[in-house]
Amino acid sequence: MDVNDLFIVTKKGTFTTKNNTKYMSIALRDTTGVIEGKVWERVDELQDLFDKNDLVHVKSKSRLYQEKPQLNITDIRRIDDILSLDELKAFLPEGLRGNDLVREEFMGLLNGIQSPSIRSLFASFKEQSSLIDKFFAYPASIGVHHVYLGGLLEHSVAVAQMAKEAVKFVGGDQDIVIAGSLLHDIGKIDEMDIRGGFRYSDKGRLLGHISLGVMIFEDLVRKINDFPSQISDILKHIIISHHGVEEWGSPRKPMCIEALIVHYIDNLDAKVMGVREHMKESMEDELWTTYHRLYESRFYKIPVGIHGD
Amino acid sequence: MDVNDLFIVTKKGTFTTKNNTKYMSIALRDTTGVIEGKVWERVDELQDLFDKNDLVHVKSKSRLYQEKPQLNITDIRRIDDILSLDELKAFLPEGLRGNDLVREEFMGLLNGIQSPSIRSLFASFKEQSSLIDKFFAYPASIGVHHVYLGGLLEHSVAVAQMAKEAVKFVGGDQDIVIAGSLLHDIGKIDEMDIRGGFRYSDKGRLLGHISLGVMIFEDLVRKINDFPSQISDILKHIIISHHGVEEWGSPRKPMCIEALIVHYIDNLDAKVMGVREHMKESMEDELWTTYHRLYESRFYKIPVGIHGD
Amino acid sequence: MDVNDLFIVTKKGTFTTKNNTKYMSIALRDTTGVIEGKVWERVDELQDLFDKNDLVHVKSKSRLYQEKPQLNITDIRRIDDILSLDELKAFLPEGLRGNDLVREEFMGLLNGIQSPSIRSLFASFKEQSSLIDKFFAYPASIGVHHVYLGGLLEHSVAVAQMAKEAVKFVGGDQDIVIAGSLLHDIGKIDEMDIRGGFRYSDKGRLLGHISLGVMIFEDLVRKINDFPSQISDILKHIIISHHGVEEWGSPRKPMCIEALIVHYIDNLDAKVMGVREHMKESMEDELWTTYHRLYESRFYKIPVGIHGD
Amino acid sequence: MDVNDLFIVTKKGTFTTKNNTKYMSIALRDTTGVIEGKVWERVDELQDLFDKNDLVHVKSKSRLYQEKPQLNITDIRRIDDILSLDELKAFLPEGLRGNDLVREEFMGLLNGIQSPSIRSLFASFKEQSSLIDKFFAYPASIGVHHVYLGGLLEHSVAVAQMAKEAVKFVGGDQDIVIAGSLLHDIGKIDEMDIRGGFRYSDKGRLLGHISLGVMIFEDLVRKINDFPSQISDILKHIIISHHGVEEWGSPRKPMCIEALIVHYIDNLDAKVMGVREHMKESMEDELWTTYHRLYESRFYKIPVGIHGD
Amino acid sequence: MDVNDLFIVTKKGTFTTKNNTKYMSIALRDTTGVIEGKVWERVDELQDLFDKNDLVHVKSKSRLYQEKPQLNITDIRRIDDILSLDELKAFLPEGLRGNDLVREEFMGLLNGIQSPSIRSLFASFKEQSSLIDKFFAYPASIGVHHVYLGGLLEHSVAVAQMAKEAVKFVGGDQDIVIAGSLLHDIGKIDEMDIRGGFRYSDKGRLLGHISLGVMIFEDLVRKINDFPSQISDILKHIIISHHGVEEWGSPRKPMCIEALIVHYIDNLDAKVMGVREHMKESMEDELWTTYHRLYESRFYKIPVGIHGD
Amino acid sequence: MDVNDLFIVTKKGTFTTKNNTKYMSIALRDTTGVIEGKVWERVDELQDLFDKNDLVHVKSKSRLYQEKPQLNITDIRRIDDILSLDELKAFLPEGLRGNDLVREEFMGLLNGIQSPSIRSLFASFKEQSSLIDKFFAYPASIGVHHVYLGGLLEHSVAVAQMAKEAVKFVGGDQDIVIAGSLLHDIGKIDEMDIRGGFRYSDKGRLLGHISLGVMIFEDLVRKINDFPSQISDILKHIIISHHGVEEWGSPRKPMCIEALIVHYIDNLDAKVMGVREHMKESMEDELWTTYHRLYESRFYKIPVGIHGD
Repeated sequence: MDVNDLFIVTKKGTFTTKNNTKYMSIALRDTTGVIEGKVWERVDELQDLFDKNDLVHVKSKSRLYQEKPQLNITDIRRIDDILSLDELKAFLPEGLRGNDLVREEFMGLLNGIQSPSIRSLFASFKEQSSLIDKFFAYPASIGVHHVYLGGLLEHSVAVAQMAKEAVKFVGGDQDIVIAGSLLHDIGKIDEMDIRGGFRYSDKGRLLGHISLGVMIFEDLVRKINDFPSQISDILKHIIISHHGVEEWGSPRKPMCIEALIVHYIDNLDAKVMGVREHMKESMEDELWTTYHRLYESRFYKIPVGIHGD
Repeated sequence: MDVNDLFIVTKKGTFTTKNNTKYMSIALRDTTGVIEGKVWERVDELQDLFDKNDLVHVKSKSRLYQEKPQLNITDIRRIDDILSLDELKAFLPEGLRGNDLVREEFMGLLNGIQSPSIRSLFASFKEQSSLIDKFFAYPASIGVHHVYLGGLLEHSVAVAQMAKEAVKFVGGDQDIVIAGSLLHDIGKIDEMDIRGGFRYSDKGRLLGHISLGVMIFEDLVRKINDFPSQISDILKHIIISHHGVEEWGSPRKPMCIEALIVHYIDNLDAKVMGVREHMKESMEDELWTTYHRLYESRFYKIPVGIHGD
Repeated sequence: MDVNDLFIVTKKGTFTTKNNTKYMSIALRDTTGVIEGKVWERVDELQDLFDKNDLVHVKSKSRLYQEKPQLNITDIRRIDDILSLDELKAFLPEGLRGNDLVREEFMGLLNGIQSPSIRSLFASFKEQSSLIDKFFAYPASIGVHHVYLGGLLEHSVAVAQMAKEAVKFVGGDQDIVIAGSLLHDIGKIDEMDIRGGFRYSDKGRLLGHISLGVMIFEDLVRKINDFPSQISDILKHIIISHHGVEEWGSPRKPMCIEALIVHYIDNLDAKVMGVREHMKESMEDELWTTYHRLYESRFYKIPVGIHGD
Repeated sequence: MDVNDLFIVTKKGTFTTKNNTKYMSIALRDTTGVIEGKVWERVDELQDLFDKNDLVHVKSKSRLYQEKPQLNITDIRRIDDILSLDELKAFLPEGLRGNDLVREEFMGLLNGIQSPSIRSLFASFKEQSSLIDKFFAYPASIGVHHVYLGGLLEHSVAVAQMAKEAVKFVGGDQDIVIAGSLLHDIGKIDEMDIRGGFRYSDKGRLLGHISLGVMIFEDLVRKINDFPSQISDILKHIIISHHGVEEWGSPRKPMCIEALIVHYIDNLDAKVMGVREHMKESMEDELWTTYHRLYESRFYKIPVGIHGD
Repeated sequence: MDVNDLFIVTKKGTFTTKNNTKYMSIALRDTTGVIEGKVWERVDELQDLFDKNDLVHVKSKSRLYQEKPQLNITDIRRIDDILSLDELKAFLPEGLRGNDLVREEFMGLLNGIQSPSIRSLFASFKEQSSLIDKFFAYPASIGVHHVYLGGLLEHSVAVAQMAKEAVKFVGGDQDIVIAGSLLHDIGKIDEMDIRGGFRYSDKGRLLGHISLGVMIFEDLVRKINDFPSQISDILKHIIISHHGVEEWGSPRKPMCIEALIVHYIDNLDAKVMGVREHMKESMEDELWTTYHRLYESRFYKIPVGIHGD
Repeated sequence: MDVNDLFIVTKKGTFTTKNNTKYMSIALRDTTGVIEGKVWERVDELQDLFDKNDLVHVKSKSRLYQEKPQLNITDIRRIDDILSLDELKAFLPEGLRGNDLVREEFMGLLNGIQSPSIRSLFASFKEQSSLIDKFFAYPASIGVHHVYLGGLLEHSVAVAQMAKEAVKFVGGDQDIVIAGSLLHDIGKIDEMDIRGGFRYSDKGRLLGHISLGVMIFEDLVRKINDFPSQISDILKHIIISHHGVEEWGSPRKPMCIEALIVHYIDNLDAKVMGVREHMKESMEDELWTTYHRLYESRFYKIPVGIHGD
């Protein structure tokens, strides 16, 4: 069966068999999952035409190897055309809750905002397709949590919803909390470049999403007449302080109630969703995951039916 | 005007005037606020009869000094009778939301629990007046947040409400999250002894509310037939892990989704309410508080009317 | 030669040969040491019947491979019967000093106790076979120090002996120091489950030996009439503070002289014995061990005959 | 002698004498030094008219008290007019090296730049008086090092000079190193507001000079046609990484040679000059300063004539 | 009553009375305790003649003030003659165990050494009066533990005794452990200069007792023919690693069993004795000390008679 | 082609082929680079005759394998003769700047010293060939920066040059800064033993170059009549404090201006040169290196031609 299609390269290695034959072993991901591929011919030529994490066009024949499908690749090369986000959706993983639902919640949150300046901020935000398209399409991170198309929106909306709820109990300015929640990770659209897979951009590595976020925000504000400077400073403060402490890359600790709320709820959502993704992939047995390097722990999954029902 | 009443001693010092007259300067708190007092006679005798943080009986005359009332104390001594919690209410500060509302929310949370074992756990909990009376009466801490009668209940209920909301977005077993939220700080009823003011007990200093909490919980479970050991272990895990990391005194990090939720929401409620209490007492100007030692920061209060309304 | 026996599985992996034959490579430990084994047939079936760290029953033929014996395994499956500790001794490693000597020292320590309450505490302890049998049989840790049957007793007795000596120089209540030394790690009997090899139990992972230790201790005290609550609080304090600082999982720092002594002597014994076990297994040359991950260092073994004799 | 002049308030307290007379004790600084002042009349009225760190207009009579001059203040109130930087010079301390010399060095550094884009960047920078005037006038910090008018320029130029020298030995792009050195602290002109003394602005406290710096820089770049985005990203990276590690408020560690050079040389200049200012004010004896809180050390001053000459 | 004697100045301040009279308030310590003194005349002249921590000669008259003796000082000046250690004993505090007993234990330890090279090391050590006199006379620290004449010897001997005992349980070369224990703090004789009170020397502040210790040791070894270089390196290693981790100023972690033993036992002795001294001076009530700044904790004193006897 | 020559062994492993043939795979380095070698005969005999990092004599035949030369080794054994530094040069890598230039700079620095005592110090230093030969020959570290013959000199001279320049801007005693820069790493000549490749000596591991450095320095000073003790203490202080903080193994923080300068410039030179060596070996693409374990970061290489020329 011929397979000619676009994939993301998730692994790439060159090896030599016992008989001194060079070959490449490659893992390729599209919307349907991950598939193994081998290059047996023109190895020297083809191996310079693409890299790990690249979006590639592949020509191959599919065969079964140890009961799993494997591609015998005859041609593979990087796609240099810039794909639109719509095209990307064809082969990158998407979120679980469904984009429509999440976008609806997003609009609902915006509709609930009372502050005139913040309303006009998001009105402008929605009109700038260079922002809103990426905000709707990007994952929330490269490899930790919400690693799928639409993940950034899903994470931002979930933080806003929970933070809005928290305001009822601990107080704070609701409009600022919602705006801060929705924008806290906005720098991610410059930190990553997803047109060739989920990767950091150069400026992302050099500057990080916190610095990039305040710059995007400042750009946004510049387009609005007489945006109040105090609100602008507070929202920037929420963006730069959302990691909570200096050790985690925030140049300032959260200093107002609104920033504290966003920080803790962001942590909660990112960490729990990260643990859930780890639970999906890395259970050691029914109850325990393997050790999670970043979180420095194993995690325990409460068994179904624990309440006896 | 004669003032003969019960107070908590919040400051106590002995000084000498230029003329070599010894006197004590004392600060006394009751439900109406704090008042200064001086002891000019029988200083040597009276100063051994009470200590800072004691509940004392005071005989005095009130006078004005620099336009503020001050007590001229003629007799002051520790109350050794153990006061009931009801009696304590007469002169200790109470929470803001009103006990009735908070208790109602507490009952509402219990009514929403589905798990038979957790239902019976709280049924038993409510019947043990040695537990429930303290749980309803104690503050949530000595000096940081929710420092008033009923503060422990108010904090526990607020955590449970927000955590329940979070479950809708990040998942987790709702009954375990609610039970863990309500019980995470239960050790505080042994860590403090409030009958002579808000103070740590000896066992509180030696063992801390995390260790005391698991022991209270185990005691509770022992009274219930066949309480499932897995649920018991998970709830104990939530209690011991709620500080989140070892450095903050948790012998275990949160290892399940339910424990992560309680940890982050507990942090959020405690920190924000602590900042709010700091804002009440320690504004340096209209926008900024003074430096908070424990939180290592000043805090910024969003000005009223920032949205132009 | 047929080998049909019980082993602990210390490694387990499934591989494929060049010729596409699947096989398992397994390491098995019993009292005589570690042996390699291969499964060449019924791989798919057998590999689901056991896991790493399980106690298994093995049917096999022994052969020599590169001058080392290797098992050709024809059947291997988990033992689900619960073995008694006595049975375990048949194939798990034991300590070096000899159990009889260590138990004698243990009895000697108990005999030297003057405090009536602490005497009755240990009298009761010795009578509860669910406690004392495990206390005599368990290792002191899974993989760091005293990793053999009887290791927990050996470690506890050594700490008690050295701590008792320290009291002569730095003071402290000798009976409390001895009791605290003997009980500081008692939680390990719930933290591990050794009936299927040396493994953490679920509750061990969730709660840790410090929390489990105070609960076992509280259970013990509950059975004794009028055990003085101050002594109980101090001994619990020694248990929870023995790791010394919060970062190492102690919810309280040692706050009395007795707790300080137990903490430092426990550290000394655990660390030095851990280094000695590392020296036994991992010398790079005559003088230096390889790098120890946990201790973040190489270690140096003083050469024999250094004093010229 | 009448003293009617402008001062900065460096201390302000209200006290009561034995005879119940209220008075204020105030410390005032101008270019000639610090002088003590007392307010004996209209205390209640005057104390609301100014705050610590304010620039005030004072009417007073000078007298000698214990051989030191002291002001008997009859009127004191905040200056609400915004003073120009030129006016400020009249009573704020200035740097030691002389502004002319330092500005000359600054111009010399700019003249040495080869890169066309960086040349046009500074050409534009020099023309924007809102930037350049503050860059020439501001101190480098509120209270640690270079705390005087022109301190920011002096520090930036010194870092650039030393960093340029370092390039000869360790390599790196000289133009980028110079530009990065000169601009690394540019955010300080927004972090502080010196028109009422050396104080943090609200946005300074909320955002910090690192975040403010990248925004000023981005503003600067926006005015230049086709400024190369790579150079822009690298210079922003130098600004945000100059504190070196996350714990010190840098959201990114230095990741290129040029950023490393600026970081280490900035540290060297700030720390040594901070120690020198401490040595000026706080020698305990001829050799040792008092303990420096921020630097957590005493410092040792090498005695003159140590080489025997 | 005239008091003309030597004292250590432990506090020194200059104040002004309401009537503009300058005076000094001074605290003086000798073997009998601490006494307050006042200087009412020639204040300007006398205050330059001595400093805090100096050994001074005082001429005064004693009187009672508020029932406590107080000195009315007429002359006070620094002693510039260098006092012999014997003379110092006349007015500096001494240890509790008695010097004779401790010296006897010291000799006993030396007699037990088998290693010929270590025997000759200490033979030489005992003969160098510049070393041994200070080793016998110095305190073990300025202000934390064993702060009295002979404290260094007492601490070193106690560590050696306990470490020797530990060798029986955990192994290690006994002679090296004893030698390392006795010499681990030898650098303190250069770090402090006690002839004018217990103070750090300049070189003590610049180099610390760890670096000074290895240099003293090297000096000692140089005088012995053919001292084995391996033993020399190991003993130096014990000296430099005895603080245990880099953060506490050890340039190396303990890397051999002997160094580990000395490190833990040194910690135990220093910490417990430091806590005991804190307990002597700073009990808040019968059970609890005040907060100890360095140790970051309160401490609990087990009540006498806790075992019911 | 026969290859019979001296090499350093940089890798050594023993393996078994499918056919049960044992062989060793070895990597060998000399001045011309690294070459792979295989031992196919007398494996058991030869593998005990040398170790990784040894200087070995090799007899072999060269052949091409996958287009790279490979040695077929017939004999390989450790060189036990001690090679002179001159002989070592024949096959160990050398620095880039050229030894002659660096030595000239070194002499220039010495000639610029004014202080008579420091002049005589270096006069003596140059005469002791046991010191100066190693100082000229050693690398600056085993594996991080300046890892080549002459690296120690090159690093020391670069630090001295940059530090001398810094004195012009931040002050400090120039002679002490130069002497401190040149001697700060002198302990490395005892920490390493390069006669068998670049390796740590036993005393290097046990004591570290900071402790070894002060001892070498003290030895040096002892040979000079009346070297001023203050200068000696300051230079020792520079040596022991050059790592800057206790966590990095300095028993003292830098406490004088001269020590601060050496510390920061040393850091700058070591870190930047370390990054440059990483850039030489480990670029992932044109702009980014791979992750550097020790420095915990990737690094970015500014592209050539960035300024458009």
